[in-house]
Formats: sequence, C-alpha cells, structure tokens
Amino acid sequence: MKFLSAALAIALPLCLASASRADEGMWLFSSPPRDAIKARYGLDVTDSWLDHLMHASVRFNNGGSGSFVSADGLVITNHHVGLDSLQKMSSDTKNYARDGFYARTRAEEVKCVDLELNVLQSIEDVTARVNAGVPAGLTGDPAAKARRKVISGIEKESRDLTGLRSDVVTLYQGGAYHLYRSKRYTDIRLVFAPEQQAAFFGGDPDNFEYPRYDLDVCIFRVYEDGHPVHPVHFLAWSPTGPRDGDVVFVSGHPGHSDRLLTVPELLFLRDTQFPLILSLIKRREVLLSAWSARSDENARRAREELFGMQNSRKVRDGMQAALQDPAFVGARAAAEEAFKQRLAADPRGQPALLAYRRIEAAQRTISRDFLRYRMLEMGFGFNSDSFAIARTLLRAGDERPKPNGERLKEFADARHESLELDLFSDKPIYTDFEILRLGDSLTDLVERLGYDDPVVRKVLDGKSPRARAAELILGTRVRDVALRHRLYTGGAAAVSAAADPMIEFARLVDGEARTLRERMEAQDEIMQQAHAAIGRARFALLGPGVYPDATFTLRLSYGVVRGYRENGADVPALTRMDGLFARSAGHHNREPFDLAPRWAAARAAVDPNVPLNFVSTCDIIGGNSGSPTVDRAGAFVGIIFDGNIESLASDFGYDDVQSRALSVDSAGILEALRHVYGAAGLADELAGYQRISELPKVERDLRAR
Amino acid sequence: MKFLSAALAIALPLCLASASRADEGMWLFSSPPRDAIKARYGLDVTDSWLDHLMHASVRFNNGGSGSFVSADGLVITNHHVGLDSLQKMSSDTKNYARDGFYARTRAEEVKCVDLELNVLQSIEDVTARVNAGVPAGLTGDPAAKARRKVISGIEKESRDLTGLRSDVVTLYQGGAYHLYRSKRYTDIRLVFAPEQQAAFFGGDPDNFEYPRYDLDVCIFRVYEDGHPVHPVHFLAWSPTGPRDGDVVFVSGHPGHSDRLLTVPELLFLRDTQFPLILSLIKRREVLLSAWSARSDENARRAREELFGMQNSRKVRDGMQAALQDPAFVGARAAAEEAFKQRLAADPRGQPALLAYRRIEAAQRTISRDFLRYRMLEMGFGFNSDSFAIARTLLRAGDERPKPNGERLKEFADARHESLELDLFSDKPIYTDFEILRLGDSLTDLVERLGYDDPVVRKVLDGKSPRARAAELILGTRVRDVALRHRLYTGGAAAVSAAADPMIEFARLVDGEARTLRERMEAQDEIMQQAHAAIGRARFALLGPGVYPDATFTLRLSYGVVRGYRENGADVPALTRMDGLFARSAGHHNREPFDLAPRWAAARAAVDPNVPLNFVSTCDIIGGNSGSPTVDRAGAFVGIIFDGNIESLASDFGYDDVQSRALSVDSAGILEALRHVYGAAGLADELAGYQRISELPKVERDLRAR
Repeated sequence: MKFLSAALAIALPLCLASASRADEGMWLFSSPPRDAIKARYGLDVTDSWLDHLMHASVRFNNGGSGSFVSADGLVITNHHVGLDSLQKMSSDTKNYARDGFYARTRAEEVKCVDLELNVLQSIEDVTARVNAGVPAGLTGDPAAKARRKVISGIEKESRDLTGLRSDVVTLYQGGAYHLYRSKRYTDIRLVFAPEQQAAFFGGDPDNFEYPRYDLDVCIFRVYEDGHPVHPVHFLAWSPTGPRDGDVVFVSGHPGHSDRLLTVPELLFLRDTQFPLILSLIKRREVLLSAWSARSDENARRAREELFGMQNSRKVRDGMQAALQDPAFVGARAAAEEAFKQRLAADPRGQPALLAYRRIEAAQRTISRDFLRYRMLEMGFGFNSDSFAIARTLLRAGDERPKPNGERLKEFADARHESLELDLFSDKPIYTDFEILRLGDSLTDLVERLGYDDPVVRKVLDGKSPRARAAELILGTRVRDVALRHRLYTGGAAAVSAAADPMIEFARLVDGEARTLRERMEAQDEIMQQAHAAIGRARFALLGPGVYPDATFTLRLSYGVVRGYRENGADVPALTRMDGLFARSAGHHNREPFDLAPRWAAARAAVDPNVPLNFVSTCDIIGGNSGSPTVDRAGAFVGIIFDGNIESLASDFGYDDVQSRALSVDSAGILEALRHVYGAAGLADELAGYQRISELPKVERDLRAR
Repeated sequence: MKFLSAALAIALPLCLASASRADEGMWLFSSPPRDAIKARYGLDVTDSWLDHLMHASVRFNNGGSGSFVSADGLVITNHHVGLDSLQKMSSDTKNYARDGFYARTRAEEVKCVDLELNVLQSIEDVTARVNAGVPAGLTGDPAAKARRKVISGIEKESRDLTGLRSDVVTLYQGGAYHLYRSKRYTDIRLVFAPEQQAAFFGGDPDNFEYPRYDLDVCIFRVYEDGHPVHPVHFLAWSPTGPRDGDVVFVSGHPGHSDRLLTVPELLFLRDTQFPLILSLIKRREVLLSAWSARSDENARRAREELFGMQNSRKVRDGMQAALQDPAFVGARAAAEEAFKQRLAADPRGQPALLAYRRIEAAQRTISRDFLRYRMLEMGFGFNSDSFAIARTLLRAGDERPKPNGERLKEFADARHESLELDLFSDKPIYTDFEILRLGDSLTDLVERLGYDDPVVRKVLDGKSPRARAAELILGTRVRDVALRHRLYTGGAAAVSAAADPMIEFARLVDGEARTLRERMEAQDEIMQQAHAAIGRARFALLGPGVYPDATFTLRLSYGVVRGYRENGADVPALTRMDGLFARSAGHHNREPFDLAPRWAAARAAVDPNVPLNFVSTCDIIGGNSGSPTVDRAGAFVGIIFDGNIESLASDFGYDDVQSRALSVDSAGILEALRHVYGAAGLADELAGYQRISELPKVERDLRAR
C-alpha cells in the first residue's frame, strides 16, 4: 500500500499550488508545459511539433485513442478499443474478435458498422462567451439551461461555418470552456487485428499488472468517398522502439480524473458512488461469467461486456482502496482546510469559500438522487440494447421538434450524425442475451427500489422481473433497423402509433428519469460554477500553470521509459518476446496464458530479444488506451494499452515512484507482423517512411530539427 | 417460468390444509406418511424397514448426508460433501480433491482431519418438557434463555445417561421439540474419491441442470478404536440401479426449508435477506474468481469456498426468482388472509391471530438488525479462519465458566466435542488467502456501515481495510494449534495475557455482536412461539398430517423415477455412460467439460449403456446431498447429489411437474470403480452382499418380504 502515501505526497501540491512535480500532468495542447519540459529534459516543444502531433492524433468516439501511422490513412489503436467494432462485424460463423484478421489487399478490408473517428483541428477559448450567456446570479436548473443554450448556439454556429464537428468542452470543472473542432471520419475499415489471445495474453488476471506481453493493437484504414485518405500529418514509425531512459510523450484522450475534487466529493465517491457502482458491476460480472460458461457462443456474445465489467471492477476496486485509506482522505482534508484558511484571510477568497459550501450542499442532493438516477436514467435498471434504442426513438420524437438549445444534449444538431450512426447501426442483437441482461437488471432495480415504489409497480406490471423482460424483448420490434428509420423520421406521432411494447415501457419511466436528470444537471451546474470560483481563487492566490482534470479531450503527457521497484525487486522497463513464451510455459500454456496457435507455430521465427511492451512515467488514465507514445522527434515508438495496478490511484493523484503507463513497443509490433502474421506488406507500409527522402515534407522538417 | 405457477398450485395446500399432494414431503421417521404411500404405491412401510434405513443413514456434520454400505463400515456420500475433508488433507504437493484417491489396502486409507459423522439412534418427543420450562406469559429474551436452559438440561441429562450425542431439535417452527440421540464417529478414513473433474463434470455451468453425467461420490470407512466398525445396519447395493418408473425413497438430512413461512417472513426474504446475502455472495465470488485466475495454487486454495459461493448464488437466485413473481406472493397472501378469516370465525383461532401480529412485529425488529447481525455476529465482515478461531478462543474463555444452560449454544456441554474437534483442527491456513478474504470483507463492512460508525472506527483503527487485514493476519498467532490448546485450557486470563492482536480485535466487536445475537434470538423465540400457536390452530381446525420444515434432521422422502418436459422436449429419467462422452465432445473437451484423463483412457472399457445419473420426484433440498436413494426393498440404488434448476423454488413449495431430485446410479458407480478406477476390490466389497446368503440377518429378513 506504499504507493498511496507516495501518490498523496505528490498529488497534494496540485490541490494547493500551481506547480506540478515530476512528470505529472495531462496538458492541453493549447497550453503545454514548455518550461517544465525544457527545465527537466532540455527540450523545446515547438508549435510545429505540437501541431503535427495534434493532427496525427485520433479520437475513437466509443472511448479510446489512436493515431495516423501511414500516408495512406492507416490508424492504429488497441485491440480492446477496436473490440467493439470487431464484435459488431462478427457472427457465429466468423469471429474477428477471437480469431483476428489480416486484409492482404485493400479489397479485403472490412468496413466497421458504426465507428466514428475524430481528428482535432483547432481549439478556441470561448469561456467569456459561455459565461456571458448565463445571467449573473442565475443558478441551478435555469442556469444549466441557459448554459446549454449558449453552448448549443456556439456549436451550431461553428458547425454551420466550418462543416466540422464542434464540441464546446468544459474544463477545470467549469473554470473554462473551449471550442474543439474536429474532422469526422465514419468510413473505417479493418486492416489487421491479432487474435484476442495475443492481444490480451494473461487475460483478466494480468490486466493492470506488469511485466506484460500483450500485442494489444488493431489497425484500421480511414476512407473518404470510397478511397483511403492521405493525411498531411501522420506519425513516422520507429523500427527500434525506445531505449530504457528515453524521454517520451503521449498524445491521447484521458477520459476522466478527479484530482481537483473537494473532500465532500471524495467522500461521496468513497461512501456512495463506488459502493453502488461496484455492487452493480460485480453482480453483472457474475451474471455474464455464469452465462458465458454454458457455451462457446454465449461466451462470444458476452465477451466484450464481461471484459468491460472486469476491467471497471479492477479500476474501481483500486481507486476505492486509495480512498479507503483514512490517511489519504485525512491529508486531503487537512490541505483543503489550510487552503480555506488562506481564502478566509484574503478578500478575494470569499466567493471560493461560499463555493465550498455550495459544493457540499449540491453533493448532498446528488447523494440523495444518485441511486434512482443511475437505475432509471443511466440505464442500470434496463440493461439491454433494445431498451436503449427504444428510449432514443421515444426521446427523438419529443426532442427534435424543440429549438436546438433546449434539447437534451445528445439530440443537439451538432451531435445528430453521431446519434444516427449509433441508432441505425445494424450490429447483431441476440434475444436470449437481451432477456438475460434485462431480466437481471430489472431484478436489481426491483430489489433496490422496492416493490412498493410506484415506478417499480409500473415497470413490473404484475409480473416477475424475468417474465417481464422476456415479454418485452420478445414483443418489441426495435431490432428492425428499417422500423427505427421510419419511427425516427415519423416523429412522436409515428412512435405513438407504433405502440411498440419496449417504447411504451421506456415511456413509463421517462417522466421520472427526465426529472432526475434535470435535477442532476442543475446540481452539476452549481458544482461547475463553484469549481470555477475556486479555480479563479486558486489562480489569483497561487498563480497559473495547473492542468485541468481529464475530460476525454486531447492531452499531452510526458515522461521517461523507466522500471520501478515492487515488493523489494526491480521491475525492468522493457519486456521481450522470449518473456511471452516463458510466462506461457510457467502456466502450463493454460488459459488465459495459452499461446495463440500462430504464436506457438512461429516461435522459432521470432527474435527473442525484440522488445514487446515497456513502461514509462507518463501521466495517463482510462481513455488514453491506443494513444501513440512518441519520441523527441515525434516518431511512433509505442502505443499505450494499460497502466499498472499502482496507477489505479492516479484518478486522484499522480505518482512517479511506482505508477506506470504500459505501451506496446513499435519494434515488437513490426516483428509480430512480419514473423507471426505473415503481414510483411502491412509492416512495410508502416515502416516504409523511415527513409527520410520518402517522408512528407512536414515530417522531414520535424525530423531535421 | 411455468414451474412457479405449478409449484404454487401444489404448495398452497400445505400452507392451509394438512393434506399434502403427489410425492410431497420431508417426513419425520417418527411419523412417516404410511397411508399416503400405501394409497399411492400399495406399499407397507414397516417399522423394521424404517428402523433399518434410519440406522444405515449417516449425517455428515459439516452439512451433508450419507449411508453405511458395507459390513466393514464403508460410508458413501457425495464428492462435494467429502470435499471439505479432501481439501483439508491436501497440500501443495498432493491434491486429493482435484486428483482423487483410491486406497488399495486398509493401511493406505487416509484419516480425515476433523470430520464428525452422526448416526441417529432414537427420537423422543420432549415438547411438553421444553414448554414446561418456559413459564407461561414469558416472551422475548427471558423466554429464549429459559428455553435454552431447559433444552441444555435435557441434552446434558441424555448425554450423561446414554453417552450419545443428544440434540433437542426444534420442529414446526417451535410447534414441537424432539430429542435426537446419535452415535458419534470421529475416526473417518478416506477410501475412494474420483477426480474433481469426474465428480463435478460440467462444473458450475451444469450445476442444477439436467441431463447430467457426474460421478459425485466419495467413499470413507468408519473406524473405532483403530478398527473398522461393523454396523448392524447397512444398505445392500443394487448392481442394476432403478428402472424408469420405479418407486424410490430418500433418507437424509434436508437442511432448511421455508414452506410454513407467513407472508411478512416471505417479504423479508425477498426484500431484505436475499438481496443482502446475494450481494455478499456475488462480491465474494468475484474476489475468489479473480484471485484463482492468477495461479494454480491460488485456485486450489480458493476452490472449495468459490464453489460454495457459486452454488449458494445459484440456489438463492432461483429462490428469489420464485419470490419475485408477484403472482406467487399474491396467492400466498390471499391464502393467508383466507386462513385468518377462518381463525377469526372460531374461538380457538384467537391465539393464532395474535401470533400473526407478533410475527409481523418481530420481523420488523429482525429487518432492522439484520445487516449488522450478519456483518458483526455471523462473520460476514470478518471472513477469515483466523478470526473465527480467535473469536472461539475469546468466547470459550467467557462462556465455559458459566452454568451449562446459560452459555451460547455452541459452548453447551453436549457440543463440546464437536467444538474442540473444529477448534483444534490442524488444517492448513494460508496467510495470503487470509489477508485477501479479511481485507475484502472489512472493506465491505466499512462500505455498508460507514466510516462514522463507532464499530467501524474501532475496527479500522485509523488504517485502510486492506492494511488492517494484513496487520492482523500477519500479527496473530492463532494459526498455532498448540497455542490454541493453551489458551482454551487457560481460560479468560490466559486469553487476555496472550494479547494476541486478532483475539483483541474480536474483543473489540464482541460487545455489539453479542447484543445483536441476543436480540435476534429473542425475536426467534417470539417467532417460534407464534409459529407454534399457528401450528396448533392449523392442527385444531384442519387436522393432522403435516410434515415440519427441514431442519437438518433425518427425513424420509418418496417418489418415482421419472423424466419431465422442458421447453417442449422430453427430458429422459436416466442418463448413460455414452452421454458423458458425447457431452464432452460437444464442448470440444474444454473445461469444465473436459474428460478426466482416466475416463478418456478407459473409454473403450466402459459399457456405454450403463446408467450414470437419474432423476426422481422425491422431495429433497440442500443438506440431502449424499442421501441414499433406496428401492422398495431398502437396497441402495443411487445417491442424491443435486436438484434441477426447477427444484430451486422447492424451498417454498413442492412441485412434481418439473422439479426433480438428481441421483448418481448405483450401477454407474460400480461400472466406474471396476473399469475406470481399477478399484475392483472396493466394488466387490460394495456389491458383495448381493448373494442373499451373505447378507446380515436383518437384511435377509427385509429382502425376503
């Protein structure tokens, strides 16, 4: 448990002061820590270097990162980021996720069902404009509505003007608003995926552990108008990977962090949110594991969701362990108290002191609503694709006629393409799996809210949860994509006329679900305003230079390739190909440590000394999966795929003693492509630009620095 | 879900009337349903037949059943009943549970660590004596203490008089008290166990399913004074097993049923007990699964507890599904209301009406205390062997000086041998596994009771749950059996002087734990008195002939070997050897459907037509595991090992439409012993008494009927 104290010592300054230590930080591309990097590593981060890296970075809209790595539009990400797409293109006869795939020709590349990639083009600070749209003194729900309206207006204006996806993102818990414009790509084709067993060697037992031996990669090609795109910016590929001690950078989309939370917010996580979410997750993990064990086909259908649950459980168990150390929370409370005393001693501190009290009050309201909100609005009570589709159709009918700024945010004009891509996806939906999931989540809903709850009575309609689930899933027609099109186009009248049982079921709970969401968003607004006030006071009293918490926007991290000590032993920075074979042998080649057959067969052909995975001190978190790890010159040396177990506390604070980011090595990827997968053509395309003369001009300029 | 309605229709009469239908009932050996069996199957159940079966039946004190099956003291039970013993005799070099065992000679038989078997000798109704010990009008805790005192007195008197283990058992929820005298055996030696994979083929996925192909047996020999016992009563072995349609009987120890519960009690189970217990179980299942996956040795250490959790989860999920059908509870409520109206219309009904109100009030108190009672007294917050030992030592010091009748019941004189056998067991305890379990259960305790709870503050002592668990487990010396002896003998002063951290930890929570237990036992007493009053009224208004709910006392069930229909298809009554090989092939011989290597090797030698498992309509429940299934003549034709998934609702009501008891076939056992395990000597000993001339006289008389 030592890393907690270490994390604490290092995390605290961020709460109190502007200076961050060591290699801490998930920095905005619009305000990179140039001075810190210069001081620490003697490196100048130039605008062109940054601009190149930003344009080569790709956001996977389903929750991951990636990068362009060839002039013909190849994008690399993790297998576990691509898994959702692999799953959706699979059937009971062809299993892309389990068996892997390689398209030897462009004609063989397989189009993804509903994948959207975004490439950030520009960042604009619109804080003043957003705040001007919320009249002074306004708070709660009216303020949230006013803010949503001005944000929707800015997004729509930008989209109309540029044709680009335009998202106003909230930073510093509401201290700043930036407009992010991105190019959208939706014709994405699979080029290469290894077998799940090679990508996720060691399975759940090795997840978040190190040393590791995973080829957790998946390679797509981006198309537009039926042809591969030729991006101006893509990353050159390092054939050797990094050496121990090298400085590296990570460019990706960390999803969420909680480093600026106040003590009442931390206690809410510890005492309410994590216990509830962990119990929901563990329940679902047991359900999916038991069902998967009954047959191979069950296991295939449940694999992605099960892995998601195991992963989330390990993450939250690790985070909760950090919060459950009274010394950790005690130190945070002491630091917060000290800051409040500084605030009290300074006239500029009064609004922030008030903000702390507002946060505490809002947190109480959130705690009270949290269970019902999660169950009824966030879908934990109705876990099934059919319900999600039915609710979207129901709400689309109600929301789309409204003015853009007054809609629920997923129905805003700026998001309608993404919404439709998702809604009209023809990914397979299995009724038995749907009944299982809906039945169990309805059971959970009933147990948590009680039979006498009015919404439970409506939900059950006099039947048992399992019987009701079967009736709804077998009765609904929303699995028919053509019907979805008709109802979406036909609007509320068509939706009502369809009298679909699942849509009518969604309608039963929609009143309370919407009310809960409104109340939650009102509290969020209060929280945002309060955090903004605290942020301003921190800025005023302690100066600039803090990075905002992660929000699934593009960030830059930096650090060094370096091992660490654990239980008194040295953990080396890099693992090699021979380690993979040794670890498998140590487990008698038994699941999940069995070698994929291609690897067993290729053993003699693989160079045992080629590096496979490595760790660095870069500050990353979930959402960074698939982020490129680049060297000083901006060349691709690896791809982030995990953090070690000690990194799980990094939601609340950074530590460079034991916490590490895990990458797949660029050299290992090439070795595997050439000698395990017979994918020399792909390897050549990736590595082919190493001859400087062949590089695009911008890349040549960069590498000449 | 059809079986619920069916179960309902058939279960209801039991709540209201004395007549049971079909093959329902777990009957006392002291009042068997002779008339029903005669009417239904034309069979006379004679005293000598009953007496023989009773004396040949064995109770496994760790929660299962068995029977004597040879003149030289062989006892057969299930592998999953013997598993606890197999586990305790295993080490990291020799794994009896996983690999199985066969002692070719008596010298090779392996003594169990702390196994106690009981054989019932006599039953005496002591209801009047017990009730006379509780002054009229006394209720709550004083009544519970008075009842415990008179019961302890009866038990001690009987034990002193006969030397037999003497237990006063509570029947009909307190409507009757019987004195059960049993012979105790503690020198039990392992003769034969198959590999876990053959015993539990299909694993958790096939648990509670049918058709099945499990050799779920384990054979011990009972010794006294260093020599095998020669029981007067043992079951003759049928070499052919039963045929489809045969009448069969089951003699065993159903653990617990809830068929006479009132509606408030059912709602307590549905709304409080099952949700809490299921969430505790699922949490632990996830913990143990994840830990097991890290290494083979972890998996070996956790196997028994993990299987217990999976099994309990499946059982309770099935029971909860029955209760969550509003039609089921609704019908029970209507029936109860109708009965109350009959009571209201009859002067003899007034005490029962009052009793219903008392049950409701007591249930409210129980609901309020339930969480803390489970966590603090029932050990869910302190899941580790070290804590259990520490608490026993602590309490032994306090309890043993008290008069027998005033002690906590596990410290009563009549139980001290069992207590000491358990306390001084030298079964291995692994510190890493202990830290894992205690750390997770302390985390759960903290999450459920909250950091500000006084007992949580004491428990954590300013540390995180995991850090505290590590400190306690690494600091305690209670894993030293010699120390346990010294502290147990030395009493409270020695226990205090030892200043052992785990014992002192147990002391921290003992005050509240004891208070909770006292309150719970007081409510139990109120419940018992109330149920007794309702039972008397039911008897007065509706007549005799009801069997009591299961209480882990010896019971007789009867029924027919018969298949059933499920999802529109016929499920046959018997499975055969060839089915095992086919099912394994259907799952590509992959875990948990892989053939044990001995079976794969013996395939050609095994007769494919020999029956392996069969189902019957006998009314059984958990605790019946290992019960002999006997034919009209009392010969052993099989051994109960499971119920099908539809039988899980039988806690609340019996159904003979789809609910079935699963047995291993006596013919299949012999075939496997001879042709898979090379255990012809053992097979001969089991089957050798088929020649009538060799049978003991009592057996000859029976078979001559």
